[in-house]
Amino acid sequence: MSVFTTVTADELRDWLKNYSIGHLVSLEGIPAGIENTNYFVDTSHGRYVLTVFEKLTRTELPFYVHLMAHLARHGIPCPAPIADRDNEYLGTIHGKPAMLATRLAGRSQMEPGPAHCAAIGNMLATMHVAGQSYNRRFDNPRGYAWWVDTAPRLLDFLPADERALLESEIAFQRAARDDGLCRELPHGVVHADLFRDNVLMDGERVGGVIDFYFAGDDYLLFDLAVTLNDWCSDAAGELDPAKADAMLRAYHAERPLSDAEHRAWPAMMRGAALRFWMSRLYDFHMPRDGAMVHKHDPARFRDVLRARIRAGDTLPWR
Amino acid sequence: MSVFTTVTADELRDWLKNYSIGHLVSLEGIPAGIENTNYFVDTSHGRYVLTVFEKLTRTELPFYVHLMAHLARHGIPCPAPIADRDNEYLGTIHGKPAMLATRLAGRSQMEPGPAHCAAIGNMLATMHVAGQSYNRRFDNPRGYAWWVDTAPRLLDFLPADERALLESEIAFQRAARDDGLCRELPHGVVHADLFRDNVLMDGERVGGVIDFYFAGDDYLLFDLAVTLNDWCSDAAGELDPAKADAMLRAYHAERPLSDAEHRAWPAMMRGAALRFWMSRLYDFHMPRDGAMVHKHDPARFRDVLRARIRAGDTLPWR
Repeated sequence: MSVFTTVTADELRDWLKNYSIGHLVSLEGIPAGIENTNYFVDTSHGRYVLTVFEKLTRTELPFYVHLMAHLARHGIPCPAPIADRDNEYLGTIHGKPAMLATRLAGRSQMEPGPAHCAAIGNMLATMHVAGQSYNRRFDNPRGYAWWVDTAPRLLDFLPADERALLESEIAFQRAARDDGLCRELPHGVVHADLFRDNVLMDGERVGGVIDFYFAGDDYLLFDLAVTLNDWCSDAAGELDPAKADAMLRAYHAERPLSDAEHRAWPAMMRGAALRFWMSRLYDFHMPRDGAMVHKHDPARFRDVLRARIRAGDTLPWR
Repeated sequence: MSVFTTVTADELRDWLKNYSIGHLVSLEGIPAGIENTNYFVDTSHGRYVLTVFEKLTRTELPFYVHLMAHLARHGIPCPAPIADRDNEYLGTIHGKPAMLATRLAGRSQMEPGPAHCAAIGNMLATMHVAGQSYNRRFDNPRGYAWWVDTAPRLLDFLPADERALLESEIAFQRAARDDGLCRELPHGVVHADLFRDNVLMDGERVGGVIDFYFAGDDYLLFDLAVTLNDWCSDAAGELDPAKADAMLRAYHAERPLSDAEHRAWPAMMRGAALRFWMSRLYDFHMPRDGAMVHKHDPARFRDVLRARIRAGDTLPWR
């Protein structure tokens, strides 16, 4: 179950009086939510999504909410938050922060071909460029510092071969940074979780990019690596060269990748795999109280990491 | 012809590099423009309208552009301006101010029924409420002060009966204000030109409200009267009671009309008719240099004004 806060039609009708989107036509819970409660809200004026935030606080939310508003007004097809009559994006439902945003067209494409990978690669580059003028800052909470802090706490849960893999990969990532490999990489606000289920495809067009609640500041190349690892890996974790090539070329056409990014690419692909292997291990072995987080299998990104290490410098590039 | 500034596909491709909306797919001039040049612009990311401003200046435009942005983020289906990579809404094409905005669905309904009139009445009330939190101010340049200033300049062009009508109506409007009839009327930013051709209907739903370049601060009731005079009048200028009733009820349901507004309603309907009779006389008899303004027949609103005067206090009300 993933509707944690029940909102009745009567409650919503009352709440909508704070907004300028007409009267309620229909209300339907969305089961896909993991961290938040989401409803489809159709009104006489249009189609919206209501999000009730179960964990994120009023202190944390403005970074994400204003990021979506910023990207939307730059033309990125992401949820555009709707301001209420007091000009605020965040309201309150059942004592929790809540937001209305536009509903986007399309559905997740879980078996993408090269054309889909090209579309999302181009959109990602566009988002990165549009994000450069966003002026709020928030370090990616699942970035390199988190890897280094968290790895020692995970070791005891792992069999010997995985423990060795985790230790050596952390050492590799540290050495890469100590060697200055990341020094010249462009950085900025990144989505950091642009998996297939966070993109709505409308045919071969990107209809919507959703779920910005892992966004933060990091290397733009890290975001590309996260995206490519999900969209362009096969069942064994190996890269599909046609899909990877399509994504990289489309990204490069919108935001040309630099020589420094070329040099850092193999390490960044490994780091992006490491990040999800670690966070899945973390959620699996150290679940939070009353965990509502759906547990993904950590083995998937262990395999991706091993595949990237094996591939070394032979990874596809633009 | 109404495309005053020719923009080629090559020029636009170059210009789009300032934006985050993907690459150009198609470009098509829109012949309907009167004061601006407009193009439909389809890109890999979506559908947009490019407006090149032929007369409005960079000093005047921010009021309108930010008004559209404000209303759009409140959920009003109006063109949402797209910010460029420098975070600006207004760019430059051929030395003129230019803007990209979202393209809306629907088409003008020139023979509306009561259901259409209800939809636009409700939308107008919603816009008025959303506009209350807009914080830029600009007096309606075609408001009461303009009527009083301009009437003497029009008299010489008119036959005796129309001259008498204009003089007596100005005197009536002045007396209404001197008597305090308008003192308690809610005011704020209004569209001021919400004729049928400025609304895109998507079936019986309002798909889009466009052309905000006559917007300004005035009585909210004035905007309702302008809208009703166009949508709910028959060929002779008489109100269609079923349409007028539908619009008024739908407006009232969203923003309840006050007793003061009830008292001022007959005078406001006359004032709204007077405004368009006068501006059409003005454009007809005193065309601006190189006038690109399409000349509407002034007689239409003379007839509407006469019909409202005849109807007196028997006009429909919620």
